[in-house]
Amino acid sequence: DSTLPNLPSHTASLFQAKTSQNLTFEAIAAHLGRSEVAVAAVFYGQATASAEDVDKLSDLLKLDRATLAAQLLTGYPDRGRAGPMPPVEPLIYRLYEVVQNYGYAFKAVMNEKFGDGIMSAICFNSKVEKEVDEQGAAWVVITLKGKWLPFTRF
Amino acid sequence: DSTLPNLPSHTASLFQAKTSQNLTFEAIAAHLGRSEVAVAAVFYGQATASAEDVDKLSDLLKLDRATLAAQLLTGYPDRGRAGPMPPVEPLIYRLYEVVQNYGYAFKAVMNEKFGDGIMSAICFNSKVEKEVDEQGAAWVVITLKGKWLPFTRF
Amino acid sequence: DSTLPNLPSHTASLFQAKTSQNLTFEAIAAHLGRSEVAVAAVFYGQATASAEDVDKLSDLLKLDRATLAAQLLTGYPDRGRAGPMPPVEPLIYRLYEVVQNYGYAFKAVMNEKFGDGIMSAICFNSKVEKEVDEQGAAWVVITLKGKWLPFTRF
Amino acid sequence: DSTLPNLPSHTASLFQAKTSQNLTFEAIAAHLGRSEVAVAAVFYGQATASAEDVDKLSDLLKLDRATLAAQLLTGYPDRGRAGPMPPVEPLIYRLYEVVQNYGYAFKAVMNEKFGDGIMSAICFNSKVEKEVDEQGAAWVVITLKGKWLPFTRF
Amino acid sequence: DSTLPNLPSHTASLFQAKTSQNLTFEAIAAHLGRSEVAVAAVFYGQATASAEDVDKLSDLLKLDRATLAAQLLTGYPDRGRAGPMPPVEPLIYRLYEVVQNYGYAFKAVMNEKFGDGIMSAICFNSKVEKEVDEQGAAWVVITLKGKWLPFTRF
Amino acid sequence: DSTLPNLPSHTASLFQAKTSQNLTFEAIAAHLGRSEVAVAAVFYGQATASAEDVDKLSDLLKLDRATLAAQLLTGYPDRGRAGPMPPVEPLIYRLYEVVQNYGYAFKAVMNEKFGDGIMSAICFNSKVEKEVDEQGAAWVVITLKGKWLPFTRF
Amino acid sequence: DSTLPNLPSHTASLFQAKTSQNLTFEAIAAHLGRSEVAVAAVFYGQATASAEDVDKLSDLLKLDRATLAAQLLTGYPDRGRAGPMPPVEPLIYRLYEVVQNYGYAFKAVMNEKFGDGIMSAICFNSKVEKEVDEQGAAWVVITLKGKWLPFTRF
Amino acid sequence: DSTLPNLPSHTASLFQAKTSQNLTFEAIAAHLGRSEVAVAAVFYGQATASAEDVDKLSDLLKLDRATLAAQLLTGYPDRGRAGPMPPVEPLIYRLYEVVQNYGYAFKAVMNEKFGDGIMSAICFNSKVEKEVDEQGAAWVVITLKGKWLPFTRF
Amino acid sequence: DSTLPNLPSHTASLFQAKTSQNLTFEAIAAHLGRSEVAVAAVFYGQATASAEDVDKLSDLLKLDRATLAAQLLTGYPDRGRAGPMPPVEPLIYRLYEVVQNYGYAFKAVMNEKFGDGIMSAICFNSKVEKEVDEQGAAWVVITLKGKWLPFTRF
Amino acid sequence: DSTLPNLPSHTASLFQAKTSQNLTFEAIAAHLGRSEVAVAAVFYGQATASAEDVDKLSDLLKLDRATLAAQLLTGYPDRGRAGPMPPVEPLIYRLYEVVQNYGYAFKAVMNEKFGDGIMSAICFNSKVEKEVDEQGAAWVVITLKGKWLPFTRF
Repeated sequence: DSTLPNLPSHTASLFQAKTSQNLTFEAIAAHLGRSEVAVAAVFYGQATASAEDVDKLSDLLKLDRATLAAQLLTGYPDRGRAGPMPPVEPLIYRLYEVVQNYGYAFKAVMNEKFGDGIMSAICFNSKVEKEVDEQGAAWVVITLKGKWLPFTRF
Repeated sequence: DSTLPNLPSHTASLFQAKTSQNLTFEAIAAHLGRSEVAVAAVFYGQATASAEDVDKLSDLLKLDRATLAAQLLTGYPDRGRAGPMPPVEPLIYRLYEVVQNYGYAFKAVMNEKFGDGIMSAICFNSKVEKEVDEQGAAWVVITLKGKWLPFTRF
Repeated sequence: DSTLPNLPSHTASLFQAKTSQNLTFEAIAAHLGRSEVAVAAVFYGQATASAEDVDKLSDLLKLDRATLAAQLLTGYPDRGRAGPMPPVEPLIYRLYEVVQNYGYAFKAVMNEKFGDGIMSAICFNSKVEKEVDEQGAAWVVITLKGKWLPFTRF
Repeated sequence: DSTLPNLPSHTASLFQAKTSQNLTFEAIAAHLGRSEVAVAAVFYGQATASAEDVDKLSDLLKLDRATLAAQLLTGYPDRGRAGPMPPVEPLIYRLYEVVQNYGYAFKAVMNEKFGDGIMSAICFNSKVEKEVDEQGAAWVVITLKGKWLPFTRF
Repeated sequence: DSTLPNLPSHTASLFQAKTSQNLTFEAIAAHLGRSEVAVAAVFYGQATASAEDVDKLSDLLKLDRATLAAQLLTGYPDRGRAGPMPPVEPLIYRLYEVVQNYGYAFKAVMNEKFGDGIMSAICFNSKVEKEVDEQGAAWVVITLKGKWLPFTRF
Repeated sequence: DSTLPNLPSHTASLFQAKTSQNLTFEAIAAHLGRSEVAVAAVFYGQATASAEDVDKLSDLLKLDRATLAAQLLTGYPDRGRAGPMPPVEPLIYRLYEVVQNYGYAFKAVMNEKFGDGIMSAICFNSKVEKEVDEQGAAWVVITLKGKWLPFTRF
Repeated sequence: DSTLPNLPSHTASLFQAKTSQNLTFEAIAAHLGRSEVAVAAVFYGQATASAEDVDKLSDLLKLDRATLAAQLLTGYPDRGRAGPMPPVEPLIYRLYEVVQNYGYAFKAVMNEKFGDGIMSAICFNSKVEKEVDEQGAAWVVITLKGKWLPFTRF
Repeated sequence: DSTLPNLPSHTASLFQAKTSQNLTFEAIAAHLGRSEVAVAAVFYGQATASAEDVDKLSDLLKLDRATLAAQLLTGYPDRGRAGPMPPVEPLIYRLYEVVQNYGYAFKAVMNEKFGDGIMSAICFNSKVEKEVDEQGAAWVVITLKGKWLPFTRF
Repeated sequence: DSTLPNLPSHTASLFQAKTSQNLTFEAIAAHLGRSEVAVAAVFYGQATASAEDVDKLSDLLKLDRATLAAQLLTGYPDRGRAGPMPPVEPLIYRLYEVVQNYGYAFKAVMNEKFGDGIMSAICFNSKVEKEVDEQGAAWVVITLKGKWLPFTRF
Repeated sequence: DSTLPNLPSHTASLFQAKTSQNLTFEAIAAHLGRSEVAVAAVFYGQATASAEDVDKLSDLLKLDRATLAAQLLTGYPDRGRAGPMPPVEPLIYRLYEVVQNYGYAFKAVMNEKFGDGIMSAICFNSKVEKEVDEQGAAWVVITLKGKWLPFTRF
């Protein structure tokens, strides 16, 4: 799609197969033993797949194993180009806005709890869950979990 | 501090009082019945305080109630200016990088689970927790919880 | 058209069909029971169409139903890329200028009337109307209506 | 306030007087016979006040007439600098997002209704109203009304 | 030409026809009863042509009338994308520099002569003339004429 | 004024004197034998004044000659910083928009009339005039006159 | 080459012919009676060629005269797009850095020697020479020669 | 001066002393045995002065030696902040434009003459000279001389 | 110094004390048992000091211990604001250029040696050494050493 | 690959050949007598290859010698366009962050050790090594070695 000019070629074929096989990320994630967020990130070229993931994906999505392997197992992701920053997509912008508004608050709380360092975005995992409150309203719960890395003294 | 040129004047006085009273965000948050993230956001001028919050803060931090009320109860926050975007602070950059790398993956998963819409950053809360794994390593767990807002058909 | 490089492929086919069928947004909107602004937003890939919308659009515009369904019912809009920001188109720039010049005035008035929060751009609708004054001059009246979302206390 | 570095000096004194006199924009606007949006725009230096406005403002806000006249009647507004663009304030960003997402839809509908031209942002007025729906939820209704200016043929 | 990636498709065909018919903008403008600047703006997709203009252009430039009509009479110009801003072309940069250096001087003089408002760029025309001084040196004289629009009081 | 942070110190004193002496640019320009645009540019630090101009300005504006000479006759203007680019002021933005929309049209016409080169913005003058049409509407006429400089063959 | 997306189509054919004919810019420049810098600028579409230049280039480079004439003699250069600014190419960045570091020093010296004005980049020529010092080290000597243009008093 | 906010504190005192002592860069340069460009660069904090330079400067400019030494001999220049890039000053912009338009031409000629490498901007000197042609017109001649540095093979 | 507007207040006092005590980073680093780079980073507010470091620094630099402790032991560094990016300082730009030119080469080599991950900039140390080659030329050797962090599978 | 739009055409063929021949940069570098970083830089078009390198590469990678020579031996690298700056790739961003955070610290230490100058990025080499610590954790060691270039006095 012309609106996604920076995505790798496998993005289109994986999404088309997902649609034609009528599969959800939830189902694919369960089949692979991975998080839905990670599976979607593989689709967008932002995370790696193992050889076993490729086997399972080609089975489930009815995609040629060799082609998929060539796309997913050759080289390493060139991350960070899925869309523009600052995001123009309203859903993604809201996440960006959380960082913009609460970034220093997160830093102040983390520094207090952990000292001088960062939360890793590499040694990291994430999930998205749905909750429904008593009034029947749906809520999104995103969990970001990263290892704490203290700045090395040198 | 010259490195924080866009912060409201109450930021410096609240942080100084917190230091001199030797208080943590955890203790202040418990006293106010709020989240640590929200309390830090109040310090940075990114969230509002109620009149009751002002009473409790002036008590706990030994700050003049009238001055604090003038700072926190007059007007409304002018949010979004605590620091530059993209963030240059390494801790905050990691959160930005999560949005950059996983933004479209979050969108794909949310669209699948909820349909066409966004996770609100306004009808929203957040917390930061510490976990220690079996090897003794510390992990940061950030929870972002926002109401799902479907795009209105019109 | 080369001047609209970021639009989805259905934009061109919908506009061509609208031209060849000699239809107005007004007529299409009436047929769909939607606002003209929403219909034009569907054309530009900035709003979703329902399955029923697709049926009616393929009838009215003489477009292949399956093709249109594949374009409009697969996936979700990737919003925000129809044109550059700040806008370079004079008509759109004027709206941007309204935000630039009156943004803080709007905020001050809304905060006074509603408290601390935002007007939703998601739980939102809009219309464009024409008025003619006594001198025969035409005026544009844009109505932006969004649900008020107060910041959650947390 | 350090968060508003580009505002004229009268902004602070007008807001302080409004607070100390416990006045709303609604009351001031009624006294001046103007829109609340226009009054707030005068406060932010984005709109002019007439000599009569200055008389009424100095009366109502208990401000020295000569000082206010020097601030408001000397020179002309240097518009457009009240805050950064793109906006970082969540409330103002939502308006910007409306322009970003629906800009070309507005253009398409206006071109159809009016031909080739723009909606003026100068020969223009605006108001903000509150509506409460049957469920008791509050809605913001912003009206933007501008004269249609056709491009001159030359 | 690859250096003009944002121009509509008719730009290339009009310029080629102008070259092959060995016509000047002066001649075309005389034939259409329009300004040379306006004619060049039509070529670049920055101004509209009337049906009569299309008849005359197809005659004069030996271009297929139906094709030209489809290019020029369908839809409305998407203005502002002919080249980058700030301009990198030296000739156009000089005009930009005039705005940069003398913009506030123009504003001060216009405010004095006309009050609070703007010179319209829509209800507007322009021409370029050549003068030769006594030493035989050539001078460019650009006239920008726009209707004065006072800010509406509201 | 805080909205004009990049202007030289003489800008404020010249404008204050002009206001207190109740003088127009027209009157000052007539007294100096210069264009109103040039006089306003001197006020904004975008043009030089001669020693004779300083004499006349100090007379007319009742300003100390030595102070004014120190401000205007020492050093050379550091041009281009009077305001941001792209302009955020609506009046100045309209001029910028003229360059954005018609820049390539101006270039095409100038290249045809003069060959390969530019219109100088240095060997240049400009004036602003007011015209009133038959309906009583006011029009601004800006004349930009610059020497044509052909690119040197080398 | 994909790294030079903004260059005109003749750039590639001229460079290929130069390579296949094993010619240097020095030789071509001597044949045309022009500077090497000017010849390279013609290759990159940043300078014009005369009809005589085209004859000589087509002879020397064994290129079809009509094709070359269509490329070089139709229209006028659209300058300034050969590469990004700030430059990312190390060689070109060094020249940019000279302007960044010494720009105000050049201005101060020129204002002292010439008064208020600029060095023309249009009525301008340039050359690159090689010098070898006593230690055998090579030095580049770039000469930039431009006519001095004083700001016109108006 | 507010227009030069990033300059070191010695810039203002050196320029004031130069004015009050009625000295030219030419005279100061002759006294120091340096180039005028280098002297102006010292004034703007873009080049270092030796202890001997400081002695001579304090003599010539009647400045306190200890103060000047503290300003010029403590620490090292923090180069590159004298003004914005791209330059907004017309004189400096012309130099920037030369790099923009002729950058790749310079590269092509240097690569031909010297191979793969750069002209150093560090092992570098520069001068500005005035020439008057037969018609009495003044020309600026800027010489940029830098050591050729070939890329090291590794 | 005005050229370093974003540095914390302790930067100036530490550098002044270092100068007045005539100490090198080498000597301070040896005294603290840290790297010179880390010590300079502490000066610039980009790294933390321990309480023991503060004791030693106040001894060595003859600075008041309590003041230094308040500056260095209260709060956590707000990193990343020491200077603009891209760097305008020539020395720092060269390091940026290394990242720009060799970034993907570093990535390719690291991915080959380590798999999918990053080199940590947090669990990281660095040093700068001087080497002199056989011709007597000085070389800088920068060592960047960071822990390899593989992307977590999730 | 669409994610690398600015790379020369030889990048894809070299990487494909490397994959199909199952070669590492280490092996290729050993064969060519060069550093792995340099070899990867040749692949990305950021460094030159000698004729002998081309012979060896075509042998080892089973690529047509003439094609490879045309790609690698014609012209000179147009460096700096391999990816965006600031980098969005997490691995490369970490290197950028090192420059952002420690840039002024590096400058301070180098100025102390070497005086006023820069570390050359041209007369430069680099290597990447792997170390494993006592706990079995892998570390990346990047060495940047550049000749020291003192600013020339002029």
